[in-house]
Amino acid sequence: MPTDTANTGAGPEIVTAAFIIIGDEILSGRTKDANLGFIADELVEAGIRLKEVRVISDDEDEIVDTVRALSAKYDYVFTSGGIGPTHDDITCDSVAKAFDRGVSHHPEAVKRMRAHAGDVGVDLNEARMRMARTPDGAELILNPVSAAPGFIVENVHVMAGVPRIFQAMVKELLPTLKGGDKIHSIAVSSNLGEGRVATGLGEIQARYPAIAIGSYPYFRAGNYGTTLVLRGTEMAVLEAAAEEVRQLIRDQGGDASDVEDN
Amino acid sequence: MPTDTANTGAGPEIVTAAFIIIGDEILSGRTKDANLGFIADELVEAGIRLKEVRVISDDEDEIVDTVRALSAKYDYVFTSGGIGPTHDDITCDSVAKAFDRGVSHHPEAVKRMRAHAGDVGVDLNEARMRMARTPDGAELILNPVSAAPGFIVENVHVMAGVPRIFQAMVKELLPTLKGGDKIHSIAVSSNLGEGRVATGLGEIQARYPAIAIGSYPYFRAGNYGTTLVLRGTEMAVLEAAAEEVRQLIRDQGGDASDVEDN
Repeated sequence: MPTDTANTGAGPEIVTAAFIIIGDEILSGRTKDANLGFIADELVEAGIRLKEVRVISDDEDEIVDTVRALSAKYDYVFTSGGIGPTHDDITCDSVAKAFDRGVSHHPEAVKRMRAHAGDVGVDLNEARMRMARTPDGAELILNPVSAAPGFIVENVHVMAGVPRIFQAMVKELLPTLKGGDKIHSIAVSSNLGEGRVATGLGEIQARYPAIAIGSYPYFRAGNYGTTLVLRGTEMAVLEAAAEEVRQLIRDQGGDASDVEDN
Repeated sequence: MPTDTANTGAGPEIVTAAFIIIGDEILSGRTKDANLGFIADELVEAGIRLKEVRVISDDEDEIVDTVRALSAKYDYVFTSGGIGPTHDDITCDSVAKAFDRGVSHHPEAVKRMRAHAGDVGVDLNEARMRMARTPDGAELILNPVSAAPGFIVENVHVMAGVPRIFQAMVKELLPTLKGGDKIHSIAVSSNLGEGRVATGLGEIQARYPAIAIGSYPYFRAGNYGTTLVLRGTEMAVLEAAAEEVRQLIRDQGGDASDVEDN
């Protein structure tokens, strides 16, 4: 059972998620990950809180253990990578093993791949047909780019690693998932170093336990400063805390300006 | 004890690592991670195998549990983030707790920060001096950018999250660490889809168990194809396997060309 979803009384409804990136090529530095930033943004919009990300190798035991652990801990798990036609694509079999399920060709996946192969004139050999396999009982995730689908087993959503396909699958999938209360944010930029606002900021944080205040120093174009980001589900409380932060910056002799938080 | 370092007989010497990115701002998508790709590349050069990456929130229990788990599993652990002066910077205290150590101002860190503050005319208030705190008995990692150092406790190496400082710390740190046998790689690009080479590639992989063969489809500039990356510690075996891959591509009617693997 997810541990972080006990919603007591009138508190915000919290829906949590983890993201597993499966791929030796990310760990070796050969491929630079482009999927984390994308899904992180999309989950915020969907009202789902991304709590943890793991990058693991194409290793059956690692995949099985990680899927089991995170499936039990969070409401949703998303994965990317390892669902192609080659010998190193072991995500499908490993996820099936994590849930003690068999693997077989999914009739609807076979149909979609045949239709796509006919359209683009590709020979559907045995290796390609491996991409129509899913754990038994899986639901499919539409792949509008190249047909070979992703799939869902329990709360685990398995998607491709190629960013163009991953992004298309996420866009198909997220509207079908239940989100919680959306987290709003206000970002206040200042021309002060973090050290100047640190003490006052700690005091404001203590007065607003429902708001998470993050402090992010920046150095750019020869200037330095700090952006303070406040997050919370209740807009009125968020705005009150933000106004205290703006006042703190002015009290310290700085300039405060709200910035787009993205 | 690390589990993945039992070097038996004449096999390659394997040194493993994990990387922990600590920061709500990465999970919320606000900040796009720039440190994973950098350290992945640097570790390959240093002969250290990055086996796992986790992105976790600024939460004491999460940091303590993750540091303990990965410190026990791998030879080295590297962390980024959460060592600034503000209330949300809890990495130092959390790492100390993971190893049941106290926290105090490190005399050499205080000295370096005083010298730097004098140079740049910054007031060293209490909040800034928090950055001179380390777990008891820690060694320092030089910060050539802004003085506030990283630190080492047992096999855990704690560094800043700001990419410019993180990168400088990694460059200072890695030459001091013991690497294992370096992994060499050969990347062969082809104009064939993954499905065309998948079966033959599986057969080559079975004949060369000491070589890891990865298959990475690409779509770019209107063309598609597959890059096959072979990795191993012994150059002669690697080259023999690569020649089989080139021949497989030619047998399938494709063009094979070696590409720079980075």
